[in-house]
Amino acid sequence: MRRTITGFSNPTVKYLRSLRDKKHRKREGKFLAEGLRLLTDARECGRLPEMLVMAEGRDPHPLLDALEADVERAGGEIVETSADILSKITGKDNPQAIAGVFAEFDTSLAALDRGAAPIWLVAQSLRDPGNLGTMLRTGDAVGAGGLILLDDSADPFSVEAVRASMGAIFTQQVALARWEEFLPWLRSGAGQLVAASLRDALPYREAPYAAPCFILVGNESRGLPEEYEIACDLRVTMPMRGRADSLNAAVAGAVLAYEVLANLKV
Amino acid sequence: MRRTITGFSNPTVKYLRSLRDKKHRKREGKFLAEGLRLLTDARECGRLPEMLVMAEGRDPHPLLDALEADVERAGGEIVETSADILSKITGKDNPQAIAGVFAEFDTSLAALDRGAAPIWLVAQSLRDPGNLGTMLRTGDAVGAGGLILLDDSADPFSVEAVRASMGAIFTQQVALARWEEFLPWLRSGAGQLVAASLRDALPYREAPYAAPCFILVGNESRGLPEEYEIACDLRVTMPMRGRADSLNAAVAGAVLAYEVLANLKV
Repeated sequence: MRRTITGFSNPTVKYLRSLRDKKHRKREGKFLAEGLRLLTDARECGRLPEMLVMAEGRDPHPLLDALEADVERAGGEIVETSADILSKITGKDNPQAIAGVFAEFDTSLAALDRGAAPIWLVAQSLRDPGNLGTMLRTGDAVGAGGLILLDDSADPFSVEAVRASMGAIFTQQVALARWEEFLPWLRSGAGQLVAASLRDALPYREAPYAAPCFILVGNESRGLPEEYEIACDLRVTMPMRGRADSLNAAVAGAVLAYEVLANLKV
Repeated sequence: MRRTITGFSNPTVKYLRSLRDKKHRKREGKFLAEGLRLLTDARECGRLPEMLVMAEGRDPHPLLDALEADVERAGGEIVETSADILSKITGKDNPQAIAGVFAEFDTSLAALDRGAAPIWLVAQSLRDPGNLGTMLRTGDAVGAGGLILLDDSADPFSVEAVRASMGAIFTQQVALARWEEFLPWLRSGAGQLVAASLRDALPYREAPYAAPCFILVGNESRGLPEEYEIACDLRVTMPMRGRADSLNAAVAGAVLAYEVLANLKV
């Protein structure tokens, strides 16, 4: 189905704009992703938008043609609109020329196959969508299976998180769980839980990592609760040579993840 | 000097608000930092605000008393105002109860003592103030001497960068330079320039790092220009197991910096 929207007050414009808001995303079970690169990543991962929104005056591109054809073939909707309206939808002054509406993925722990990858990233109450997207991107780079978000984390389907993931939202599995749910799930199978800590910790370059390794990072301002640290199989410490006693959450996760990757030699 | 400000239209409020804008910061040569933790970090690094702004109804704290006393002793100005006005100054809905105005630091290359630290971070056209602050924070953690910002980078003295640095803006030296100025400066003394690259690169875990090691990361969307890569003494490659071909700039810098730190055994 193909149609053209010319008015700002069109209900579809309102619907698309509403997807920038978490409450509406959850009600609809949909999220927005922008840009040819991100949508091409999605397509190559077998994820097509249910609705493809394209701005008039966009530059032609063979990948855009391929995307459009695939969305049409799959019975998706194609919406042509003005650059101004697309800008209003995405909330960016210089929007990409296309955006897509995707159905949110299954985010249950039960959907994860822990044996599918040697590394999993786990974040507790991660508040910053940029950090969340960056962790997805790092997970993709180290060959992780996905990101498990514990407790009250930012929404992985926010425009900001999707953007910062640089496409990894489509390659990484995402699960949302409370700690009380995560821990029994983890202990129901193989899995080593590792966190950076100062509590009887080993130097992070000399620790016996084992796959599947679950790398746990804490909230940006409070770090990990004590009981979470105690529940870890391995606590490791990274050098802190300056005044600061911690790293940015996404940075800590990445330094640990690359160390684990090198040690597992997978 | 101590005074109380009760009106939103007070010229000092306008002046403080203007410091959120780069143009005004540069004209005044001042920047804003918020929060007791940040201001205490500054104080312990020997940096006192020229003006300390405190909201009525703040919780008392011995560190706040110490700060106040030091600012008064140094001849600084102390401004009491309402929480609403402080919120307007910092642009945050839930502002910290205090903020300070600092004189910007010397950001010339000539001010750097390269022999003072084994690691230096260098970023080219870094656009995101959050990434910039995160790199300062990482630099502090690995014992780097500072951050050199090449070409058109975000402003290290923006409220966002200062906030993301978690105090490292006060421990790390910062220099701003064009590439044409940086390269001759680098070559005028000891220093190994290292970048992540795909060009005849060595695995990053097996590269011969040497101090002082200058770790160069590129712009968030375009990466490093070819001529910058070619000018490096060492090009290293990090595993990319997924679809993405790059990491977030601050993450790439951190993973490399921790690897260099471990290899230099300093």
